[in-house]
Amino acid sequence: MDLPSKWLERAVDEVAQLPGIGKRTALRLVLHLLKRPSVQTQQLAQALTDLRTNIKYCRECHNMSDQDICGLCTSSKRDRGLVMVVEDVRDVMAIEATGQYGGLYHVLGGKISPMEGIGPQDLTIGALVEKAKSGSISELIFALSSTMEGDTTNFYIFRQIEGLGIKTSTIARGISVGDELAYADEVTLGRSILQRIPFELALKS
Amino acid sequence: MDLPSKWLERAVDEVAQLPGIGKRTALRLVLHLLKRPSVQTQQLAQALTDLRTNIKYCRECHNMSDQDICGLCTSSKRDRGLVMVVEDVRDVMAIEATGQYGGLYHVLGGKISPMEGIGPQDLTIGALVEKAKSGSISELIFALSSTMEGDTTNFYIFRQIEGLGIKTSTIARGISVGDELAYADEVTLGRSILQRIPFELALKS
Repeated sequence: MDLPSKWLERAVDEVAQLPGIGKRTALRLVLHLLKRPSVQTQQLAQALTDLRTNIKYCRECHNMSDQDICGLCTSSKRDRGLVMVVEDVRDVMAIEATGQYGGLYHVLGGKISPMEGIGPQDLTIGALVEKAKSGSISELIFALSSTMEGDTTNFYIFRQIEGLGIKTSTIARGISVGDELAYADEVTLGRSILQRIPFELALKS
Repeated sequence: MDLPSKWLERAVDEVAQLPGIGKRTALRLVLHLLKRPSVQTQQLAQALTDLRTNIKYCRECHNMSDQDICGLCTSSKRDRGLVMVVEDVRDVMAIEATGQYGGLYHVLGGKISPMEGIGPQDLTIGALVEKAKSGSISELIFALSSTMEGDTTNFYIFRQIEGLGIKTSTIARGISVGDELAYADEVTLGRSILQRIPFELALKS
């Protein structure tokens, strides 16, 4: 693309570095900003800068938080022995939205991915293992997405805490509620058969 | 969405004001920025601020430019009597990419749209009419998108310059080159029949 202004070009190049946004979309977004009052652009730029400067992570669960220790970790209503391992803040939000979980979280900040150059030391796995060794965890629930990276990460953590007497589990994989079998992918369908549960148990949930 | 940090919330809210970006996508983009080195966020914020501060528009055609008068308007190779009316910089880029046009442009900066509160005074129509009255234009080519807003804008400009002896034309609408008739929408197909051209003319292009 041959842009008529270097300022426009720089802005488009920067916006196009965001995931899922190509040069054409970036140009559309930038032109939109130019049509709006300049205060909107300033606010956007300021909000992004402020976020980078001010964001804090909970010392306990490593979720984003404006306090040193987040509301979930300080709550007296949560089961403190139950810890769910998730990737990022969106997973915490998704699980909280179900209303089905009353334990704490541990946010890894990503998954082990040699392809992207992310190793265990880039995540909060060390802190999780320490927490496990302190004896405060009774059950660890793995809730990473079931990709190769997710499975690798689960297994890496599992090996680190093996022998500490901590119960481990992973959230169930299977056919989505309301989905038709005929349209389900075969891996998911296969897993849902292998990991079938007693009917009386299903009746209760 | 219940976000755990007010800084995160503000950034997501600002990003979600961009067209076609909802809260979920905004959260994904913002979390991506948080995973990257903070210099990337700073560069993005700076590029947007710089753009708003430094962007200039060509005094002649109102296209974006880093000079007072853009390269197209100062070029000695362009037909200065031919002026194509377009909406924004993307249209100029698209037309230039065809290599089929050797005249000048006039960038309106939008279309008349009562729904969005955009009137003729918000666009560069006044400057275009003045240019037309100065006698420098021999033919005006309307190249706005063929929507109700585009047609309204064309007609508004047409009425303003009527009687000045300027030839007016509009780019051809019809079936895309390579498209099958059976899949064309009926309005376009209808227009392509009403506005059919002599076969000898088609042979030449």
